[in-house]
Amino acid sequence: MTEPTVRIDLGERSYSVRIAAGLLGETGEALAGATGAKQAVVVSDTTVAPLYAQPVLDSLTEAGITSRVLTFPAGESNKTLATVSAVLDGLLLHDPPIDRKSVVVALGGGVVGDLAGFVAAVALRGVRFLQLPTTLLAAVDSSVGGKTGVDHTAGKNLIGAFHQPSGVLCDVETLRTLPKRELRNGLAECVKHAVIRDAELLDFIESHADDFLSGEDGALAFSADGMIELIARNVAIKAKVVAEDERESGVRAHLNAGHTIGHAVETFVGYENIGHGEAVALGLVAENALAVSRGLLRADVADRVKNVLAMLGLPVRQGGLDADEIWRLMQHDKKAMAGRVRIVLPNALGDVNLHDDIETGEVRRALEALQ
Amino acid sequence: MTEPTVRIDLGERSYSVRIAAGLLGETGEALAGATGAKQAVVVSDTTVAPLYAQPVLDSLTEAGITSRVLTFPAGESNKTLATVSAVLDGLLLHDPPIDRKSVVVALGGGVVGDLAGFVAAVALRGVRFLQLPTTLLAAVDSSVGGKTGVDHTAGKNLIGAFHQPSGVLCDVETLRTLPKRELRNGLAECVKHAVIRDAELLDFIESHADDFLSGEDGALAFSADGMIELIARNVAIKAKVVAEDERESGVRAHLNAGHTIGHAVETFVGYENIGHGEAVALGLVAENALAVSRGLLRADVADRVKNVLAMLGLPVRQGGLDADEIWRLMQHDKKAMAGRVRIVLPNALGDVNLHDDIETGEVRRALEALQ
Repeated sequence: MTEPTVRIDLGERSYSVRIAAGLLGETGEALAGATGAKQAVVVSDTTVAPLYAQPVLDSLTEAGITSRVLTFPAGESNKTLATVSAVLDGLLLHDPPIDRKSVVVALGGGVVGDLAGFVAAVALRGVRFLQLPTTLLAAVDSSVGGKTGVDHTAGKNLIGAFHQPSGVLCDVETLRTLPKRELRNGLAECVKHAVIRDAELLDFIESHADDFLSGEDGALAFSADGMIELIARNVAIKAKVVAEDERESGVRAHLNAGHTIGHAVETFVGYENIGHGEAVALGLVAENALAVSRGLLRADVADRVKNVLAMLGLPVRQGGLDADEIWRLMQHDKKAMAGRVRIVLPNALGDVNLHDDIETGEVRRALEALQ
Repeated sequence: MTEPTVRIDLGERSYSVRIAAGLLGETGEALAGATGAKQAVVVSDTTVAPLYAQPVLDSLTEAGITSRVLTFPAGESNKTLATVSAVLDGLLLHDPPIDRKSVVVALGGGVVGDLAGFVAAVALRGVRFLQLPTTLLAAVDSSVGGKTGVDHTAGKNLIGAFHQPSGVLCDVETLRTLPKRELRNGLAECVKHAVIRDAELLDFIESHADDFLSGEDGALAFSADGMIELIARNVAIKAKVVAEDERESGVRAHLNAGHTIGHAVETFVGYENIGHGEAVALGLVAENALAVSRGLLRADVADRVKNVLAMLGLPVRQGGLDADEIWRLMQHDKKAMAGRVRIVLPNALGDVNLHDDIETGEVRRALEALQ
């Protein structure tokens, strides 16, 4: 079994992402070695904690690290400042409370990682944290790069901080208990990575699609080696982008491909009705259509991306979208600048540019590609 | 009239602290020049906003910056995550909402600056902010150095972030409306700066004490030039320490002189019963006594510091302290490491070291100096 390690190169904030089967059982050893921590608090949700908290606690205990679990109700609707407040109470009102050398261990998917990372960013003005992603979306995207935060009624991820983890341990075995729909959410971000940086990755995804999605919901039967390679290739892409632009003042915006229209569609349809990756798939299809209509991208390349998304079981059509409302939501996206929409468009697979001269008519026509 | 400017040297996070009379009226010009902002939100409290928000808004409007005021109830008891949440609602639910180029203007004392700075740190994962301190404590201490945050029931400033302002405009005229007790809170931190870095500053404070405290509560009659010099000298000390150690991994801990015992006394007595500077004054007296008993500091130097504090009208005695409880609180201070108390002790005026081998008996004897 291979065990790739991807280094996230950020000077004194550098860290490693390890990807392998069985890594949950090495949490304690990894923490003791990397941080010298004596106290850890595992933050998880009501879906993941019953499945995977015990091996993590056992591993921490074995390494001589005092630990406990704080669990909050699963679901994006709980990724709020109110939950942050409750978790902070759990950290600070315990006896003994956390101190500056304590470590927060985020065990779960993107919601857990984003929220626990934000808690770690603000508790005692910042303590260390370790990411243990248990979804593909978290493994290839949200656990790497230091973006942490919670949602606000005005929009997703509007409250947060940049706070890099001390390390990421991605145990691919935890992904087997996902529903396929959740695995697909992660695959959409993998396709996005292919679009912005790596044409060959699209070939790899296409040729392994059946393997990734084999088995049943909650008992996925992918080959561990294939999944490890998928995650390692995607983390490497994200690592390179983040290392070039940690605070998103430049090329990090490329990671937002598919997300400008995707976020607006996600908000319009309602977070409870559509997965993040599903919205990104729709966003990629629409934004690629926009790139084609601008004469930037060849139509057959846009079609190929759409076909791979469809082969993965991701949506490439969505009825009932109100173009005026989608446009209004795009103007209010937090990445918009003074109402000016910014969008990442491909010239070819692996080659994208940021555009800030998008007009409402183009978006209207692009949305027709989803009919 | 002099206008000193102190540079806070932190690489790409560097900024200037300007100290002069009448600076509120230059807010717009300063923001437009330094940040190119088009939208600003003034965050203030119910004490300061009625006095000083209008000239700030007028100045912003004159510079072509759209602005509005968000006010929260004055007082340390409102420096909470709940208030942060309410202020974030005000930023994000407004039409138009803030964007990444918007600037938060903190207008007020330490509570306003700490809270508004934290809001700026987490809104959209960080927007810029400007400090307009209106108390001496905020001017010489909390507005400089990037520590932002709020209190938790488990202790003060337990939730926060390091987030440097884009600039500090200290209008000394705003200090005239302070009660003397509040001015004294700031003077205690000035004495602390003298103890850790600058023996001559103690002479300066001593010789100007009568001037600083002349006039009546709410109509202070200090000479502007004297106050400007006081603030500039103190900001320069803090700037140097912060530039050496932005994240408090080393010498920045020296700024905690007087605070290890002071914080514990403040918690024991109750925040509603004692000012922060009053607690620091008591902390300095007790910690200096501890330094004398360790043979580090000459007794006559400790006496001199105590006499200056008394001359400023700050408390140097406090009855009813329970030494066991004070010790327990010190062990739970967020600057303690795994229950080990850390304390900054002077060898002479301007020369201090951090000690982490303090024992309960020494603290008990030191507290006797407050009887």
